[in-house]
Amino acid sequence: MSVIVIGSVALDDIETPFGKVEKIVGGAAPFACLAASYFYDKVKLVAIIGANFPKQEIDVWQHHHINTEGLQIDETRQSFYWSGKYHIDMNSRDTLETGLNVLEDFDPIIPASYQDCEFLLLANLAPTTQQTAIKRLHKRPKLIVMDTMNFWMDIALDDLLETIRMVDVLTINDAEARQLSGEYSLVKAAKKILNMGPKYLIIKKGEHGALLFGDDLIFSAPALPLADVFDPTGAGDTFAGGFIGYLAKVGTVNFTNMKNAVIYGSALASFCVEKFGTEKLKNLTEEEIAARVQQFVSLSKFEII
Amino acid sequence: MSVIVIGSVALDDIETPFGKVEKIVGGAAPFACLAASYFYDKVKLVAIIGANFPKQEIDVWQHHHINTEGLQIDETRQSFYWSGKYHIDMNSRDTLETGLNVLEDFDPIIPASYQDCEFLLLANLAPTTQQTAIKRLHKRPKLIVMDTMNFWMDIALDDLLETIRMVDVLTINDAEARQLSGEYSLVKAAKKILNMGPKYLIIKKGEHGALLFGDDLIFSAPALPLADVFDPTGAGDTFAGGFIGYLAKVGTVNFTNMKNAVIYGSALASFCVEKFGTEKLKNLTEEEIAARVQQFVSLSKFEII
Repeated sequence: MSVIVIGSVALDDIETPFGKVEKIVGGAAPFACLAASYFYDKVKLVAIIGANFPKQEIDVWQHHHINTEGLQIDETRQSFYWSGKYHIDMNSRDTLETGLNVLEDFDPIIPASYQDCEFLLLANLAPTTQQTAIKRLHKRPKLIVMDTMNFWMDIALDDLLETIRMVDVLTINDAEARQLSGEYSLVKAAKKILNMGPKYLIIKKGEHGALLFGDDLIFSAPALPLADVFDPTGAGDTFAGGFIGYLAKVGTVNFTNMKNAVIYGSALASFCVEKFGTEKLKNLTEEEIAARVQQFVSLSKFEII
Repeated sequence: MSVIVIGSVALDDIETPFGKVEKIVGGAAPFACLAASYFYDKVKLVAIIGANFPKQEIDVWQHHHINTEGLQIDETRQSFYWSGKYHIDMNSRDTLETGLNVLEDFDPIIPASYQDCEFLLLANLAPTTQQTAIKRLHKRPKLIVMDTMNFWMDIALDDLLETIRMVDVLTINDAEARQLSGEYSLVKAAKKILNMGPKYLIIKKGEHGALLFGDDLIFSAPALPLADVFDPTGAGDTFAGGFIGYLAKVGTVNFTNMKNAVIYGSALASFCVEKFGTEKLKNLTEEEIAARVQQFVSLSKFEII
């Protein structure tokens, strides 16, 4: 039994009001894998990197028991590159430059040892690539979670809809839920999106928390109010990784466990934004995570008599 | 013992994507009084209306056991008038026209029978008028809750700060908290605002719920995800009225009771937006309110083992 994470691995140049970093490891997969690794020790990565990728990062992942057999290295090209600048509100950002490089014709090869996959996380990637990954698994995983973004709604909507139809859980942000459904009300948006195929929908609302829809129920998770958000890059990927990692740990997929998974994912995401890139996610302790989750408990707990 | 609500009473012209109404009863006080009346039967109104105000509305309030002895009627002038148009997102609106009329030189006279006030709600009004009301009470109420808006930050900041210093709880929205504090992070904004005088701060975030700050604690209340928001006018006033009404009912002011008060206020606000103006608030049953509050419970409840 294992969790497969398939997604981009990038080198990012990031500017926030707190500072500027160059060629820091990013992309959806590192955030998601590291987050999942805190809950489950059989996380398996499918991704591609280029010649300029710092190999010592792979050691860090392996130290977190992340299986990198499915990590392809193309020494003839550069790694996927993204550069962005965040505004003061940290909710909006400008993409300054994107270099697809190795991602351009990425073929997601699934190693034979990965065929025990029960939990599949399709982190942000081209929908066709996500779909290929699903098809290459001989046995359909117990749970397929898919993250995506507005970019694919703009340029590959048909492929995206086809892929969405194949998954169990879709995670997108509120603007994307509105774009995908054409509905402003998130309740109406969720209804339409659940009719597109997934059994569950998670709408990520950044500093406003997240909504989980499914089983005719709604769960509203708070976000931890933070004094400083250092770098929001990867928060959504971290959330998705923590979410699927927690579910893999408990093993049973139901709404009750999903609610907790949303809280654990949110807790991991709240750590992620405290430092640039994946830095904060490299050295968390079980105690720190448990204490952070307790903050979510006291933040949202009330008792009506 | 009683709850005093002082605030504007208006006749509104409102346009939302769902329709258009003219000269409907609005203003902060009617929403707040009606909401409070569901929890506490000694709600006392201080406000002013003009010659064109439909008197049968006063009967409705009295039917809700709202004491209107402090309601002044100026037959020589028109009622306060506001007209606004909401955009599709319902979070932003344009004020098309405002006619101060009777509000221009409103002197908040406190009837002798109101001097038993233990809970004072200063609903949105000029800060100097709010301050006068506080000073006219012979004994300081146990709890003073103040609502205000960006308009007073723009044109009467010094008066506003002076009034804020005198109250226990301030309720504003997230944009206003940022404007008042000059901080983007709501955690930092809350810290600064609590240093301005109030012991508690409630940041209203519309469809994203509300945050309660105080006693070195934070409570995050969800908003009920709604398929249709018919007319958001008065939701904040309704929240404040439900909040103080619930606290008056339980009698003891502490963080635990305040959390529940935020939930009850949010529940009442979720009804408010289902119809134009105060219509929905006129005919709620205890059962409906209890059921709505249970929706908030199941919406936000999770159990981490």
